[in-house]
Amino acid sequence: MRGRLTGGMLSGSVVLVALGIGLGSAEAQNTLPWAETAVELRDRALADNIAYEIVEGLTLFGPRLAGTDADHRAAAWGAERMRGLGFENVRIEEFPLLVWTRGEERGEIVSPYPQPLVVTMLGGSPATPLEGVEAEAVLFETWQELLDAPEGSLTGRIAVVLQPTPRTQTGSGYGSVSQIRFQGPAEAEARGAVAFLMRSLGTHDRRSANTGSTRMGVGIPSFAMSPPDAEQLVRVARHGPVRLRLVGLPPDPVQGHTQNVIGELVGRERPDEVIVIGGHIDSWDVSPGALDDAAGIGITTAAAKLIAELPVRPRRTIRVVWWGAEEVSQPEGGLAGARHYAETQDELGQIPDHVIASESDFGAGLIFSLNLPPGMADTELAREAMRILAPLGIHFDSAPALSGGPDVIPLVRLGVPAFRLNQDGTDYFDYHHTPDDTIERIDPARLDQNVAAWAALLWLIADSDIDFRR
Amino acid sequence: MRGRLTGGMLSGSVVLVALGIGLGSAEAQNTLPWAETAVELRDRALADNIAYEIVEGLTLFGPRLAGTDADHRAAAWGAERMRGLGFENVRIEEFPLLVWTRGEERGEIVSPYPQPLVVTMLGGSPATPLEGVEAEAVLFETWQELLDAPEGSLTGRIAVVLQPTPRTQTGSGYGSVSQIRFQGPAEAEARGAVAFLMRSLGTHDRRSANTGSTRMGVGIPSFAMSPPDAEQLVRVARHGPVRLRLVGLPPDPVQGHTQNVIGELVGRERPDEVIVIGGHIDSWDVSPGALDDAAGIGITTAAAKLIAELPVRPRRTIRVVWWGAEEVSQPEGGLAGARHYAETQDELGQIPDHVIASESDFGAGLIFSLNLPPGMADTELAREAMRILAPLGIHFDSAPALSGGPDVIPLVRLGVPAFRLNQDGTDYFDYHHTPDDTIERIDPARLDQNVAAWAALLWLIADSDIDFRR
Repeated sequence: MRGRLTGGMLSGSVVLVALGIGLGSAEAQNTLPWAETAVELRDRALADNIAYEIVEGLTLFGPRLAGTDADHRAAAWGAERMRGLGFENVRIEEFPLLVWTRGEERGEIVSPYPQPLVVTMLGGSPATPLEGVEAEAVLFETWQELLDAPEGSLTGRIAVVLQPTPRTQTGSGYGSVSQIRFQGPAEAEARGAVAFLMRSLGTHDRRSANTGSTRMGVGIPSFAMSPPDAEQLVRVARHGPVRLRLVGLPPDPVQGHTQNVIGELVGRERPDEVIVIGGHIDSWDVSPGALDDAAGIGITTAAAKLIAELPVRPRRTIRVVWWGAEEVSQPEGGLAGARHYAETQDELGQIPDHVIASESDFGAGLIFSLNLPPGMADTELAREAMRILAPLGIHFDSAPALSGGPDVIPLVRLGVPAFRLNQDGTDYFDYHHTPDDTIERIDPARLDQNVAAWAALLWLIADSDIDFRR
Repeated sequence: MRGRLTGGMLSGSVVLVALGIGLGSAEAQNTLPWAETAVELRDRALADNIAYEIVEGLTLFGPRLAGTDADHRAAAWGAERMRGLGFENVRIEEFPLLVWTRGEERGEIVSPYPQPLVVTMLGGSPATPLEGVEAEAVLFETWQELLDAPEGSLTGRIAVVLQPTPRTQTGSGYGSVSQIRFQGPAEAEARGAVAFLMRSLGTHDRRSANTGSTRMGVGIPSFAMSPPDAEQLVRVARHGPVRLRLVGLPPDPVQGHTQNVIGELVGRERPDEVIVIGGHIDSWDVSPGALDDAAGIGITTAAAKLIAELPVRPRRTIRVVWWGAEEVSQPEGGLAGARHYAETQDELGQIPDHVIASESDFGAGLIFSLNLPPGMADTELAREAMRILAPLGIHFDSAPALSGGPDVIPLVRLGVPAFRLNQDGTDYFDYHHTPDDTIERIDPARLDQNVAAWAALLWLIADSDIDFRR
């Protein structure tokens, strides 16, 4: 039998047990001749634990802010680890980076009820003076209210945006408010504000403030506060005008470098045709980035490693990229590692050789759906993929994949097709960009379900000659 | 019907709804003539919200470390609030205090995997040098292992105790490890250690380190780290000897003062006979202390306020004490406010007038059991109390109450009887002494169940002439 598992409602271990029973008696009715190998890969992934080992190895380095020593050390380890796992053409592609690092930071309500606030600076923010910025706060319940405020209306004030982050499975809630962090400081500055403070982009209620990058080059210092601190600020404000003091002393950004780490399984028949998968190696400076994104690196690398252990390589080349500098923004934009790779490949004329691309960068929740490129819904590949993935609790989402994760955006812009294995991110923004993004948040059994889906789908695509650009 | 509610398994609102139905049709069969008023108080408490208002008011002041401005402000507000609620003889009893305050603090693994650690200093710890203490760590899985280490064996090292805190309903798990925090630094110093680092006394897995007082006068700086940091330390230590650096720069303690805030409902027949209840006004410096112990103040003050609203006072006097300086230790010991009160009362010869005493200082979970003083199990009071409390999900615990909460220990030592309304503390040590002890952790409906139990029992005792010393 092949029952459908509604994965999101089951614990990881229940999924494993259910699969152990369900798959053992599965009768394969594959119509693509190479699909039986995908089934084997799926089932082997559920009994493997290499993804968790990679996550543990990578998080041992602690926070891996792009351009820092820990980032470089982790990259060197990653290259060595890839070689050990059987990858070919393993290389570290360095590129320059303007490196922003955090300094001392603190916040407080000065009046009417003096007390400290748990705040963190947004990545890329300029520093305050040594003694901080002290000013009256103007509270906006929503982002739109700030946008509606007239020019000059915030002169000499601290703009505070209190809008909470909706909890959703797909991350659409985060998407609906993420511009507050990226555009908020610039919009506040345009209205005369001397500093910007926002409720963290997070769905939790812990005393942790979520960091994350804001647009570089804005002139006012920018902070996020924990959700309970935002609520306290609202309560305090009922008793009179609020004065705040914010201190944030990051050193001036310095010119440095970071890297992408790349390894391949060279295709046996069509080695020039490349499938690009991976996760990003850098993390924010406040945590070891277990969910964001050691998990994605572990999942995709483990999936390729299972294929590396097969007696034959697939027809096409699988390229695993541990992307550098996904988190931090640069004066010219974000995704520095992904841009560097896409530009390099473009200069070499190799973009047309990129068959398809996807990244795992949404934590370690169970995969619940698959998107394929436009026009792929009614194909034998889609049907075969779903025969193999459905027992993992995955359904087919008929919407075409227009993106495949942040680090493949530059490739997609150059015309490379993408697929998505969508993870359940209901809890993702409880930990994202906070000190709590640690290995404790990862359920090894759920990680295995991810690896199983990636390995199976990866094989189906890599051992085929399907053109996703049609 | 009077069904028994297994409160711990129900959400607060379910309890309220169940009680709303159950109590409306309750047939009172009271054998103590004044018990019907206790039933009324119980039911009115469930419809009241004054406890939550007090918690909100007190936590507005933010952290209330004993001897700080916020502590003094909160006390002044408390006295005013008590007067507003109808209390008599409201007064602030000041007493001197050596005030320890936190300075800059941080920790890091220096090798083999350099990374920051989330640490906090234990209250009362001496400072490190400006550059911190850097030394090799000696890891002890349990407290007993440290005690078993020979003299001199830790010379020049940092002693690290990794023992976790068991999760229990009554707090016995915390009790089983709390001496690590209080005695650990002294025991480590006696074996030559230059610093002390422990896994937080906490049942959570957040990146929060739990503070709390250690013995004052020990010569080595002492820290706690978050539970995930303790786990990371263990993983890192598998790769070689661990060097740590710990920085903690509290200023030298200064002579200051703090206070107990006291209000009374003077008894109509036996005004000299006093029942003492309350919670403590001070909190640790890392949070607004909603659970520890604004909740206890809210619960006991609200219970007395409901009695204050009755047309008559009870026979005996009810004295509500907002205890000062429960958290911090002094060179001569802890519980400075409770000791000051007990000594003052003793000097006045008024200890024999203290009928009974109890404190609410274990958060805001549902009350699940009652302990009365020795010899009270087979009495009409116990039976009457249980007729009234059982529908709240409370059972009678036949073990005699030998204590009534930390701040009544000095009274109990002088022979004052105590009772306990035991709260479910299963989650209490997830938040205790961490930045996360905020009002978000409090369920108003559970708070109301507490007030209902306190108000009913308080009336039964205060309107009686029962001698608990027999």
